[in-house]
Amino acid sequence: MDATLNGDTVGLRCDEGVIAEVGPGVSAAAGDEVIDGAGMALVPGLINAHTHAAMTLFRGFADDLPLMEWLEEHIWPAEARLEPEHVYWGTRLACAEMIRTGTVAFWDMYWHPEAVARAVEDAGLRAVVAVPLIDGGDPESARAKAEEALDLVRESPSGRVRAGFAPHALYTVGPDSLRWVAERAAERGVSVQIHLSETRDEVENCIAEHGVRPAVHLDRAGLLGPSTILAHGVWLDEAELDLIAERGATVVTNPVANLKLAVGGLFPYPAAREREVPMGIGTDGPGSNNSLDLLSDLKTFALLQKNAAFDAAAVDAGETLRLGRGEMSDLLRSPALGAGHPADFLLVRSDSPELALGELDAGLVYAASGSIVDTTVVAGRALMRRGEVEDAAEAAARAKECAFEIGVP
Amino acid sequence: MDATLNGDTVGLRCDEGVIAEVGPGVSAAAGDEVIDGAGMALVPGLINAHTHAAMTLFRGFADDLPLMEWLEEHIWPAEARLEPEHVYWGTRLACAEMIRTGTVAFWDMYWHPEAVARAVEDAGLRAVVAVPLIDGGDPESARAKAEEALDLVRESPSGRVRAGFAPHALYTVGPDSLRWVAERAAERGVSVQIHLSETRDEVENCIAEHGVRPAVHLDRAGLLGPSTILAHGVWLDEAELDLIAERGATVVTNPVANLKLAVGGLFPYPAAREREVPMGIGTDGPGSNNSLDLLSDLKTFALLQKNAAFDAAAVDAGETLRLGRGEMSDLLRSPALGAGHPADFLLVRSDSPELALGELDAGLVYAASGSIVDTTVVAGRALMRRGEVEDAAEAAARAKECAFEIGVP
Repeated sequence: MDATLNGDTVGLRCDEGVIAEVGPGVSAAAGDEVIDGAGMALVPGLINAHTHAAMTLFRGFADDLPLMEWLEEHIWPAEARLEPEHVYWGTRLACAEMIRTGTVAFWDMYWHPEAVARAVEDAGLRAVVAVPLIDGGDPESARAKAEEALDLVRESPSGRVRAGFAPHALYTVGPDSLRWVAERAAERGVSVQIHLSETRDEVENCIAEHGVRPAVHLDRAGLLGPSTILAHGVWLDEAELDLIAERGATVVTNPVANLKLAVGGLFPYPAAREREVPMGIGTDGPGSNNSLDLLSDLKTFALLQKNAAFDAAAVDAGETLRLGRGEMSDLLRSPALGAGHPADFLLVRSDSPELALGELDAGLVYAASGSIVDTTVVAGRALMRRGEVEDAAEAAARAKECAFEIGVP
Repeated sequence: MDATLNGDTVGLRCDEGVIAEVGPGVSAAAGDEVIDGAGMALVPGLINAHTHAAMTLFRGFADDLPLMEWLEEHIWPAEARLEPEHVYWGTRLACAEMIRTGTVAFWDMYWHPEAVARAVEDAGLRAVVAVPLIDGGDPESARAKAEEALDLVRESPSGRVRAGFAPHALYTVGPDSLRWVAERAAERGVSVQIHLSETRDEVENCIAEHGVRPAVHLDRAGLLGPSTILAHGVWLDEAELDLIAERGATVVTNPVANLKLAVGGLFPYPAAREREVPMGIGTDGPGSNNSLDLLSDLKTFALLQKNAAFDAAAVDAGETLRLGRGEMSDLLRSPALGAGHPADFLLVRSDSPELALGELDAGLVYAASGSIVDTTVVAGRALMRRGEVEDAAEAAARAKECAFEIGVP
């Protein structure tokens, strides 16, 4: 293909899922499958660093209700009926949407994680699939089940799926189980994803119950390390940001979901940036966003931060894209587009109305949405060409059947 | 065509720009051009109630700068070099994007309004094209020029373009000129668009200079009537909202542009809704948004209001769509989809991943963006079919040349 990369016309050749050559003058060899990149720019893919993909099944279901009414009367009863097959098709649908909007890898946390892993395998994306843990009535049995699920996820054959633990949150997982996760994750060399400091109530309850703020409580359990993702972090204070920066955990902001669930606050990005806290961005689950179009959420992220700072220059398009590409965290980061590195990349329509004028970074963040992506390649395989994702229609139809089976109209 | 309308499968026939029949069982007559609506939902088009369309020329140009530096050092010098041909192609590009994302009519305010009108004619959309007025050094001559421009815009032959006055703002137009606009607009039966209460400074300066808040000052000039659009209204207080409700002026919120320019506040929608203030929503110019995708901005609108209210139920998808369709203001409202009414409508891909599950309204607002629109019809003419806007590539290429001519890189 011939596409532009930082303004130069280049070719890129993949071999066995890896970039073999990229640069001016690189052309196809005999027998290569060729993608025409004319009118396109070659850019890195996006990393959705926090989601619950299968919740496509609950999208647009009982929307616009107060949070607890939505959860207790609608979502939880439906989730109780979920079987692995439902989670598989919900995740496949989510994968189709992420492929279409330029996400090449995502960090997921949901029930029946082995079904999530299978869906990611089949869809061709990369993901870190975390097995959820909630103490419930019998913490010991919950831990044993999590360990079992972790083994199942790890059997994924392609290398595109990695496993992790996901203790749900401080208000659903007690200190003993948190310490257990810290030990098991270290022994097994896997990452940890946890919701932290999403709502003000959560912070107040943590202080009331444990005498310290959430990040301190998590640190005492041994979980605030460089392999941990803290989803949300809306209410982190400066002392917590200092501690997180010291320990090297990654905070993942979910600006659109925070607005939609009306948490009422805003992730303190300038304070986190000043301390060089590792950071990423996620859509959160499609039940509470309701989109998986991370490029749209990047715009919302940048604009909310500008407005909160009363300063249009507070955040720029370049750093917003680095956040969306996982480049602000060693845990999330992918190798750069270069020979010998995984062949994950996008072609975006740089001759489209939205990108025809002005700088590419500003165009991607402020003017475009995920529909600007023409081609999504992961591990050398084109999962979308010319805006068409293979199997998207099947995924939508099957997910619809699954939603009906669990009582979602 | 066969598409779904509120869940029923219907056909719709147009004749001479008007809907001839719509309902179950309506089918094509001999010689009709036929659009296949299978897998689509038939919905009303969107009304972008505040924009400066030709500012596509400045999109992604000197982004992420403080507001005054952006205006004084970059935008204004480039605007001083604008010729009608530049404005024409900048507007054509904007029209292509609005057609692609489901806007069927827009309210515009920009220099060389006769070129804006010509672009709207050629693109096939509807617009109210307002002639701008700034007092500058010689208010009498500025008024004479505005009157002249109004005559030129009114010559537009199709009936799809209407003319109006656009006194820029209270800080650029003095009380004498405001009164002049009120008189001339009433005599000529045209509408008025003005920026009002966008920044906190503007409100403070108005109070310092005139002793009253902006809406009161405008009312004293005779401009706060049912044919006036007040763009922004971020800092309106409750007494101003009472007055606006009494007078029947329409407030148009521009949530994304307000964030991008970091005005620091939020339009007091719940208070305005309580008083039944007529309302609409706009993208503002693509220099300060930078997108013309109103469906994306509807999501941002709803989410910001939910979050500010600390209540996920504060605004729902249905009312958000009514706002975007101009249904909350008699000035903006279009006739409903029905026989004898203008044939303006959209077909949206209701079998796409984003809309496959859940309610259509929630899907459109929260899960989809403008790329969900398959077909845009205005006055019976399909301006976009299967996601392809005729002439979009030409508009982008010509706009790029124009931007280069006025010194935008």
